[in-house]
Amino acid sequence: MFSVAQIAEYLQGQIIGDAELEIVRLSPLVSADTGCVSFCAHTKSQQDLRCCNASVVLVQEIDKHLVKHTAIVVADPYLAFAKISQWFDWRAAIRPGMAENAVIAESATVSEQAQVCSFAVIGENVDIGAGCYIGANTVIGDDCSISANSRIEANVTLYANVHLGERCIVHSSAVLGADGFGFAKSASGWQKIYQLGGVRIGNDVEIGASTTVDRGALCDTVIGDGVKLDNQVQIAHNVRLGKHTAIAGCTAIAGSTHIGDNCTIAGLSGVTGHLQIAADTHITAMSLVSHSIKKAGIYSSGTAIEPHPSWKRNVVRFRSLDQMAKRLKNLENEMQQLAQKVKKDDGY
Amino acid sequence: MFSVAQIAEYLQGQIIGDAELEIVRLSPLVSADTGCVSFCAHTKSQQDLRCCNASVVLVQEIDKHLVKHTAIVVADPYLAFAKISQWFDWRAAIRPGMAENAVIAESATVSEQAQVCSFAVIGENVDIGAGCYIGANTVIGDDCSISANSRIEANVTLYANVHLGERCIVHSSAVLGADGFGFAKSASGWQKIYQLGGVRIGNDVEIGASTTVDRGALCDTVIGDGVKLDNQVQIAHNVRLGKHTAIAGCTAIAGSTHIGDNCTIAGLSGVTGHLQIAADTHITAMSLVSHSIKKAGIYSSGTAIEPHPSWKRNVVRFRSLDQMAKRLKNLENEMQQLAQKVKKDDGY
Amino acid sequence: MFSVAQIAEYLQGQIIGDAELEIVRLSPLVSADTGCVSFCAHTKSQQDLRCCNASVVLVQEIDKHLVKHTAIVVADPYLAFAKISQWFDWRAAIRPGMAENAVIAESATVSEQAQVCSFAVIGENVDIGAGCYIGANTVIGDDCSISANSRIEANVTLYANVHLGERCIVHSSAVLGADGFGFAKSASGWQKIYQLGGVRIGNDVEIGASTTVDRGALCDTVIGDGVKLDNQVQIAHNVRLGKHTAIAGCTAIAGSTHIGDNCTIAGLSGVTGHLQIAADTHITAMSLVSHSIKKAGIYSSGTAIEPHPSWKRNVVRFRSLDQMAKRLKNLENEMQQLAQKVKKDDGY
Repeated sequence: MFSVAQIAEYLQGQIIGDAELEIVRLSPLVSADTGCVSFCAHTKSQQDLRCCNASVVLVQEIDKHLVKHTAIVVADPYLAFAKISQWFDWRAAIRPGMAENAVIAESATVSEQAQVCSFAVIGENVDIGAGCYIGANTVIGDDCSISANSRIEANVTLYANVHLGERCIVHSSAVLGADGFGFAKSASGWQKIYQLGGVRIGNDVEIGASTTVDRGALCDTVIGDGVKLDNQVQIAHNVRLGKHTAIAGCTAIAGSTHIGDNCTIAGLSGVTGHLQIAADTHITAMSLVSHSIKKAGIYSSGTAIEPHPSWKRNVVRFRSLDQMAKRLKNLENEMQQLAQKVKKDDGY
Repeated sequence: MFSVAQIAEYLQGQIIGDAELEIVRLSPLVSADTGCVSFCAHTKSQQDLRCCNASVVLVQEIDKHLVKHTAIVVADPYLAFAKISQWFDWRAAIRPGMAENAVIAESATVSEQAQVCSFAVIGENVDIGAGCYIGANTVIGDDCSISANSRIEANVTLYANVHLGERCIVHSSAVLGADGFGFAKSASGWQKIYQLGGVRIGNDVEIGASTTVDRGALCDTVIGDGVKLDNQVQIAHNVRLGKHTAIAGCTAIAGSTHIGDNCTIAGLSGVTGHLQIAADTHITAMSLVSHSIKKAGIYSSGTAIEPHPSWKRNVVRFRSLDQMAKRLKNLENEMQQLAQKVKKDDGY
Repeated sequence: MFSVAQIAEYLQGQIIGDAELEIVRLSPLVSADTGCVSFCAHTKSQQDLRCCNASVVLVQEIDKHLVKHTAIVVADPYLAFAKISQWFDWRAAIRPGMAENAVIAESATVSEQAQVCSFAVIGENVDIGAGCYIGANTVIGDDCSISANSRIEANVTLYANVHLGERCIVHSSAVLGADGFGFAKSASGWQKIYQLGGVRIGNDVEIGASTTVDRGALCDTVIGDGVKLDNQVQIAHNVRLGKHTAIAGCTAIAGSTHIGDNCTIAGLSGVTGHLQIAADTHITAMSLVSHSIKKAGIYSSGTAIEPHPSWKRNVVRFRSLDQMAKRLKNLENEMQQLAQKVKKDDGY
C-alpha cells in the first residue's frame, strides 16, 4: 500500500488534490475505482479520463482539469505509469539461498544474496552475482556468468560460456548459447562446423519466452545494453545487436548480421545474413530485410490483407508483373508514335 | 481390444457385416489389414476403400457398398474416426499420486486423483483438480489453478496467476504467463512496464509445444473455451481469443487484439495489435492482418511461390507499382483524348 | 594442443612451412595470431589472408603464395575448417554414468557408456545406446530409442515412441513427438484426433533449440539421415523429410507434406500441407510454398524491402492489380483499333 505522496515523490510529479490517499492497485482508466492509481497517456483517452473513478490519475498538465479526484501531473504519464508499475508487481522479493535439491558444481561461485530454486543445475566455474534469481529446472552450463540482480526464470537453458550483464531478465524456455546453424557441404552430406564462440549479453537486457540466441561460430554473439527481445525471437550465430534495440515476437535475425542501436523490428520479420542495419532503423511487421540498410528510417515489405477472392486474382497477376511493365512501356511508345502521326496528319 | 459392436455403439453407427470381429488398431485405408478399423472420409478415397483390407471401415451411407469386409455406417466418418481415435491412444491412464521427488508447496491443494511426475515444482496456493496430470520437470507458479482432467506435459512453465479450465492439454516447452512485451520509452532507454495481469484459459483448450501465452499488462489475457493453439504460436498480452478459434503453427497475435469465436488462422500468420477480428474470420497461411476485420470471411495477403528468376523480375517491378498505376492512368487519358481527336478529324 | 603435422594429416593436406608449430585455437583470418589455425575460403578474403598472422592457414592451391607463415593446402578450405573445428570444441568428452538424481525406469536399457545428467527422467522400455549424452532436466518418454553417440541437450522433451538414429544432436527446449494439430469439426466444437503414430529420425540429424517435430496421426513422422533443422522450426504430423535436407530457423512444414532429398529451405518460410516437394528444391527466405513442386530449382514468394512511404503506395495498388491488368488489356485493344483506324484514314 502506498500513499499518493509517495507515488508523486517517486515520479517527481505535482499533486492536485489529496496526498494522503492510500493506493493499492494500478488500473486502466475504465476499470479503476477507489484505491487505484491510473494514467491518461493519449488525447483519445480524455473521455475515459472524465469518467474515471480512480483515487489518483497520472496526467499531463493539459489534462489535469479532467480528473475527478486527485491528479499527479507529470511530463510523460505513460512513462510514469511504467515506472510505478514495478511497485505493484506480483513477484515476491527474492529469498536468498539455494534449494537443497539444486545441483551446483563445487567450482561455481554463487552469491549468498542470490536465490537458486529447486532442480536448477549450475555448472563448473559459473559465477552468479548478488540479487540474482535462478528459476526451477533451469540449467546453467559451465563457465557462464550472470551479473548482479539478473533474473533467470524457470526451465531456461544456458549452454557453456554465456555471459549476462546486470539486471537482465530471461524468460522460460529461452535457450542461450545453442549451436549456430553452421555446416559445410561435403560429398557425404553436411559437415558440422563446431560452434566455438560464446554469447555476451549486456546490462538491462530482457529475453522473452522460447527465444533462442545462438553462440558464435568463432567469435561471440553480442547483445548490447538495454536490448529487449520478445518471445520466440531467433538470434543466429555471430549476430550483433546494438544498444536499446527492441525486437518483437517470432522475428529471426540470420547469421553474422549487425543491427545498430535503437532499432525496432516488429513481429514475424526477418533479416537475412551478413547484413548491416543502420541505427534507428524501424522494420514493420512481417517484413523481410534482404539487403543492408544504410539510412535510418522505416522499412517494409509484403502486401496488405484483403478478401481472399480478390487477393487470389491479384496474386495471379503479380506473377506477370514484369510482363505488364513491359507491355505498359510498349503502349507508351505506341501512344507517342500514334499521337505524333495524328498530329502530322493534321498538318502540323 | 474392442469389438465392432462396441465401436458401432459408441459412434451410434449401423453395422453391415460381422459385429463380433476384434479390433486392435486404427489405420488409414491403404495400410489397414485384419484387426484394423479404418475410415473413408472423402470421395477421392473411394478407390482406396475398394481395396481396403480393414476388418471394419467407417463409411457414409453412399459408400457402404464399396466395403470389402464389415462396415459401420455413420453420418460423418471423419468425425467418427476422431471420436474413436482416443480408444487407441498410447497414453497410459494417469496414476494418481505425487512423485516423491516433486516439490509441492504446503499451501498448494493437489487432488488425490491427480498425478504429479518427477521434478515437478508446484507453487504456493496452487489448486490442481482431480484427474489432472502434471508432467516431469514442469513448473507451476504461485496462485495458479488447473481444473479437473487437464494434462500438462513435461517441461511446461506456468508463471504465477495462470488459470486453466477443465480437460485442457498443454504440450511441452509451452510457457503460459510470461511477461508481455511492454516498455515505455525514456531518455535512458526502455522502461519496463511490469505485467500485473494474469492468464485465464477456458475448458477444452489445447496448447501446442513451445507455444507462449503472455500474461496481461493490467487485466488478464483470455483464451475462450475450445480454443486450439498449434505449436510455436505466440499470444501477446491482453489478447482475447473467442471460443473454438483454432490457430496453426508459428502464428503470432500481437497485444490487445481481440479475435472472435470460431475463427481459423493458418500457420505463419500475424495479427497486429489492438485490432478486432470478427467471428468466423479465416486467415490463410503467412498472411498479415494489419487492420480490424468487421465482416466474417476468408482473408489473405502475400504473393504466390514461383521460380526465383521470374520472381526477382516481378519483385523489382512491385517497387514501382504506384508509378505503373499512374502511367496507366495517364495512358488512358491520352488514349481518350487521341481517340476523340481522331473521331473529330473524321468529321463526326 | 595440436601440431601442424597432425592437422595436415587429418585433413590430408600439404604443408608448406613448419610442420612442428603448436596450434591451440581456431580463428578467423582477421583476428588470428600465433598459435592459431585459420582458413581462407573465398577469393574476397585474399586481402585478409595477406595480413593474417595465424601460425597456419588452410588454403587452396591458388592462394598458397599469399600465406605469411605456414600453409596447409587442401581442396576445400571451408570444408577443411569445418572438419577441424571439432578438435577445438568446448564440450567435454562425455563422462559415462547416471546422475544419482536422475530417474530411470527399471525397464529402460541405458548403456554403461552413456551419460545421464541430473534430473533427467527416462521412461519405460527406453533404449539408450553407447556414447549417448542425456542432458539435465531432459525427459524421455516411454518406448523411445536413442542410438549410439547421440547427444540430447538439457531441457529437451521426447514424448513416447520417438526413435533417433546414431550421432544425432537435439538442442535444448526441442520437443519431439508432441501431438499433431488434428481436429475434426463437430457440432460442439473441435473433436481431438488422438495422434497414434510416432517419430522416426535417421542418423546424423541435428535438431535446433525450441524446434518441434510432431508425432504422426496414424503412421510416423519421418526425418531422413543427415537432415539439419535450425532453431524454432516446426515439423507437423506425418511430414517426411528426405536425406540431407536443411531447414533454417522459424520455418514451418505443415501436415503430411513430403520433402525430397537435398533440399534447402531458408528461414521464416512455410510449406502448406499435403504437398510433394522435389529433391534439390531450394526455397528463399520468408517464402510460402502452397502447391507441390515437381521440378528442382530455386523458388521464392513475397516482395522486397523498401522505404515505408513508397511501400505503402505500392501496397495499395497491389489490391487493384487485377483491375490494372484488365485496364492494360483494354488499352492494348483500343490502341490497336485506333492505330488501324488512323492507318485506314490515311488511305492504306
